[in-house]
Amino acid sequence: MVIECVVPELDGGRYAVKRVVDDNIIVRADILKDGHDLLAARVRYSGPDEDEWRVVPMHYDENADQWAGVFRVDRAGRWSFTVDAWTDRFGTWRRDLQKKVDAGQDVSSELLEGAELIDTVARRARFGNVRNELRATALAIRDVYAKPADRIALAMNPALHSLLDVHYSPPDLVSYARELDVWVDRERAAFAAWYELFPRSQTDNPARHGTFASTALALPRIAELGFDVVYLPPVHPVGISARKGPNNSLAATPNDPGSPWAIGNANGGHSAVEPKLGTLEDFDQMVAAAKALGLEIALDYALQCSPDHPWLTQHPEWFYVRPDGTIKYAENPPKKYQDIYPLNFWCEDREGLWIACRDILSFWIDHGVRTFRVDNPHTKPFAFWEWMIADIHEHHPDVVFLAEAFTRPKTMKLLAKLGFTQSYTYFTWKNRSRELREWWAEMHNPHALEYMRGNLFTNTPDILHEYLQLGGRPAFRVRLLLAATMSPLYGIYSGFELAENVPVRAGSEEYLDSEKYQIRVRDWNAAGNLNGDIALLNAIRKVNPALQRMDNLAFRPSENEQILFYTKTAPGWRNDLLMVVNLDPLRAQETVVTVPLAELGLDPALPYVVEDLITGARYSWRGARNYVRLDPMLQPGHIFRLER
Amino acid sequence: MVIECVVPELDGGRYAVKRVVDDNIIVRADILKDGHDLLAARVRYSGPDEDEWRVVPMHYDENADQWAGVFRVDRAGRWSFTVDAWTDRFGTWRRDLQKKVDAGQDVSSELLEGAELIDTVARRARFGNVRNELRATALAIRDVYAKPADRIALAMNPALHSLLDVHYSPPDLVSYARELDVWVDRERAAFAAWYELFPRSQTDNPARHGTFASTALALPRIAELGFDVVYLPPVHPVGISARKGPNNSLAATPNDPGSPWAIGNANGGHSAVEPKLGTLEDFDQMVAAAKALGLEIALDYALQCSPDHPWLTQHPEWFYVRPDGTIKYAENPPKKYQDIYPLNFWCEDREGLWIACRDILSFWIDHGVRTFRVDNPHTKPFAFWEWMIADIHEHHPDVVFLAEAFTRPKTMKLLAKLGFTQSYTYFTWKNRSRELREWWAEMHNPHALEYMRGNLFTNTPDILHEYLQLGGRPAFRVRLLLAATMSPLYGIYSGFELAENVPVRAGSEEYLDSEKYQIRVRDWNAAGNLNGDIALLNAIRKVNPALQRMDNLAFRPSENEQILFYTKTAPGWRNDLLMVVNLDPLRAQETVVTVPLAELGLDPALPYVVEDLITGARYSWRGARNYVRLDPMLQPGHIFRLER
Repeated sequence: MVIECVVPELDGGRYAVKRVVDDNIIVRADILKDGHDLLAARVRYSGPDEDEWRVVPMHYDENADQWAGVFRVDRAGRWSFTVDAWTDRFGTWRRDLQKKVDAGQDVSSELLEGAELIDTVARRARFGNVRNELRATALAIRDVYAKPADRIALAMNPALHSLLDVHYSPPDLVSYARELDVWVDRERAAFAAWYELFPRSQTDNPARHGTFASTALALPRIAELGFDVVYLPPVHPVGISARKGPNNSLAATPNDPGSPWAIGNANGGHSAVEPKLGTLEDFDQMVAAAKALGLEIALDYALQCSPDHPWLTQHPEWFYVRPDGTIKYAENPPKKYQDIYPLNFWCEDREGLWIACRDILSFWIDHGVRTFRVDNPHTKPFAFWEWMIADIHEHHPDVVFLAEAFTRPKTMKLLAKLGFTQSYTYFTWKNRSRELREWWAEMHNPHALEYMRGNLFTNTPDILHEYLQLGGRPAFRVRLLLAATMSPLYGIYSGFELAENVPVRAGSEEYLDSEKYQIRVRDWNAAGNLNGDIALLNAIRKVNPALQRMDNLAFRPSENEQILFYTKTAPGWRNDLLMVVNLDPLRAQETVVTVPLAELGLDPALPYVVEDLITGARYSWRGARNYVRLDPMLQPGHIFRLER
Repeated sequence: MVIECVVPELDGGRYAVKRVVDDNIIVRADILKDGHDLLAARVRYSGPDEDEWRVVPMHYDENADQWAGVFRVDRAGRWSFTVDAWTDRFGTWRRDLQKKVDAGQDVSSELLEGAELIDTVARRARFGNVRNELRATALAIRDVYAKPADRIALAMNPALHSLLDVHYSPPDLVSYARELDVWVDRERAAFAAWYELFPRSQTDNPARHGTFASTALALPRIAELGFDVVYLPPVHPVGISARKGPNNSLAATPNDPGSPWAIGNANGGHSAVEPKLGTLEDFDQMVAAAKALGLEIALDYALQCSPDHPWLTQHPEWFYVRPDGTIKYAENPPKKYQDIYPLNFWCEDREGLWIACRDILSFWIDHGVRTFRVDNPHTKPFAFWEWMIADIHEHHPDVVFLAEAFTRPKTMKLLAKLGFTQSYTYFTWKNRSRELREWWAEMHNPHALEYMRGNLFTNTPDILHEYLQLGGRPAFRVRLLLAATMSPLYGIYSGFELAENVPVRAGSEEYLDSEKYQIRVRDWNAAGNLNGDIALLNAIRKVNPALQRMDNLAFRPSENEQILFYTKTAPGWRNDLLMVVNLDPLRAQETVVTVPLAELGLDPALPYVVEDLITGARYSWRGARNYVRLDPMLQPGHIFRLER
């Protein structure tokens, strides 16, 4: 017997597929045996830290020539499963007996065969009463003095079949060659809206450094906008040597706060907080304040050091040492980054270094943080990430890792396979219809969806796309609508809601007066803000299950490339959404969209109603082709909900 | 470093992919490492029975973010390969040095790093002169009294780089997790025209049993028709008990020859020949006669026994024994096949039985047979086939196994993976355009092409399709043209060339007076024969490389579903064929076909010439859309060769 094509399986079982708590895991398998015997199969599975296997039966789908079984994962952590199959000897015998009986053939020899099968099960049954009952049945089936019809009826008794199923130890049971893993995250890992802010900017005076305390006061606004996660760039002591000034200038004044990614000074390294932000106690209070608002604080995990990081003196062996004895700063020849020292993950004391890096996370986990945005993971060894994430997850399966790896797609995918919960994507750079469709197909195809979850950021402190620079407020509304409806995971970086779009210079994606190097004070209620859009979209996301999944997006025909048409459906919830977005922030556009009537179960001859969840307007449509017009000055797009 | 997505790889390396002698194996891999170091990689491979690995370098394709290397398989048997990768430390250093030099930076520290690298290689170099040369170079690069430009020139010397490449033992070399297998067949395994005949029918008098000798006399005609393989149904002694008479009747007269698949009587079993056919010496002479004509004899391998097979008395333990002590005949309840006894491959003495089955093949291999058509392999254990084929192939890699498994597609594919060289297909039942396209996509998609080779039989002694019954001679010409041009492997069963199409009764696919149960005498030159078609098609196949491959068929747009349009191309040979076939045997049909100009490298504005290889007619076409009309009374289709 051969068991193959078991799904879900990732790269021959090398990596775990990802799911969230309360998902149903549908296990499918091809089970092949020579000849015409009936087969039986089951899924064998176990939850995190369980010693015993549980089992669920699999059922055969004749059309697909495939077996399937389902189990539910009810908590976070590593689940395992595999497939067993065996010949259903008694069922096969019963089937053939029935056919012969129906054809009026003599079945006395067949009855003897069946009695033998029953005796075999009886011999191996654990309980005396079962043994006796089966033996008595076998004797009765063998009884040549009884009426054949009675003997047949005994053999066909469904109760007998059930009893045999329970007590049968199939001698030809085979198991699939591998045990497969499913990594189960908590729900927030797959459905959340992120907001990035610099704590030091949470002030009303650029000369006064924001603090954890002032950040705590900023959180209610963010909660009201409907966000779930507040991500903070590094909060650690900022390096002083070679500190960068405003707009990445080389000469900083003593008042310049420097880049928070230049981590460490005499006040400490990755496990310390920048004194200007407050104390660890202040940090804890901010985390608690967030929690009280239903928000979660996410920290940056950037494994690199400023020249003043304590590790440079405590552990020079963890860095790259040049032949002249100096420690090597970062470079991308011919560029030099004298304010950053990379760690040498393959140094002699790599064990010490890796554990120290892991312990940074443990430290912040102890301070209530469960979500980490990981800076440039693609420049550190894959082996480190696989070990570190597994190690943390063993004790804290609720920890979320977001990979900030803007690199080759294959490397981004590998990091996701190795354990990262979420991934930054190239969404920021995909602004045209075709670009968006191709990018989605590459990063969110059925294979990638098994392990990769894109978190669609509209902007970051590093990325202010030309589309936003040129398109102004309407462009911001378009990108917000796309991010919030394409993916259950999306985020904005502070200032997006004010449509901030001035680059440091033409052709650059860097912000002018970037918050990376200086404190920025903002008026959140300035004219033209997007607060209304954001709050509405986050509210719509929370009540529409179709927007809470990654695997249900389908692009649909639109006759104008400027207008993107896509659907997200959640059939179990009767929640079907049709998004129509005008990608042109400057001009009104119109198109005819083709609604997938058959897929949505709509009768082509009958009208149906779609409600725009953004405006509340209701439209009666009929047939597949429907006209849509969108003026960017009024509305970037529609989120139509199909009324049922 | 991670090596993944290595191709060709079948089911995680569980099975070998298939190739033929002199194929180039193109190995591709994704090789990923953190950071920006240059990498190097190679394919490590070995041929059948080779103890040492050979290596070829792999090269990086930036667009695909993928590495590739090629090796040629120059003989039949099992080849293995895997992929190694490592950091090109010296290359990386050189690249960065060059960038810094170009930017006019001081590189004295970099030169020291390079000298260290060179010293490391020197320490591990095997030859004293290499050691000395490298050390001297390192010293010179370190020489602070020399001009920097001279030291840089030394470091950049390509000869130094080559020397280092040869003697470098990369400390971070990683190998792909698996060694992958390639099964290499001789060419005939993948490109051949088959002809099936019953030796006993090679006679001019139905009362006189044909013989090996008379079959030898029939071979020149078959060779002239251009066939390569002559397949004979079982030639063993035919069972007498429960022998079937004409048209599968239950009562045979003593003169009826019986079904040759009822194998074995007092004269012997699978290693004996039916005395009426002649002796083993006669058989050997027939094999030799075939060989002299460039033909190959293929035998049937049907692992089942007539009630009179010697094994029933010599080895009753190899069969299924019923509770009443009798041996079980074959059945498909409620049908009974009293003339056939199946073997019990899982009996107590399975080792003895499996070896005996293997030895049957060894016996015929010793008599010069290298090709076997295997009867109903899906009713015997998969484990048996995998063991048996591997065992035979170890000593005779030139043996070809054709699986006659008309069963579920997944089981057919599994048998191919387990080692069968070729497979019967559902071609016979696919007569409409859409059916043909869908069937091809299922059985010959890129994944299946790695291991499965369909042998397209137009008919068999079991299958006379309604299409042939109703369509007459034009239908036969259509099916012949399709079989011979779609696949490099195809076959016909004797009588096809005479358009024999009378079923035993309406609605049956069995022949009237089937040769399975009686001797059939034929006039090969009867009016309406297809000898001309067959000879021409086989000749066209032999000179057109595009028809000798399985992986190059592409269906193309035709505006009439009755006309199938497909191309087969062999770019390396500048051999591009366009087949247009009218599937309607009753009516003339016309269509516009769309030629894939861009794929064929044709200028839309310029005319091009296609020559019909069947008629010799030449047509000047221009642009993609071209009109075609086909009258089944004149010609079933075109084989257009694009003139270059």
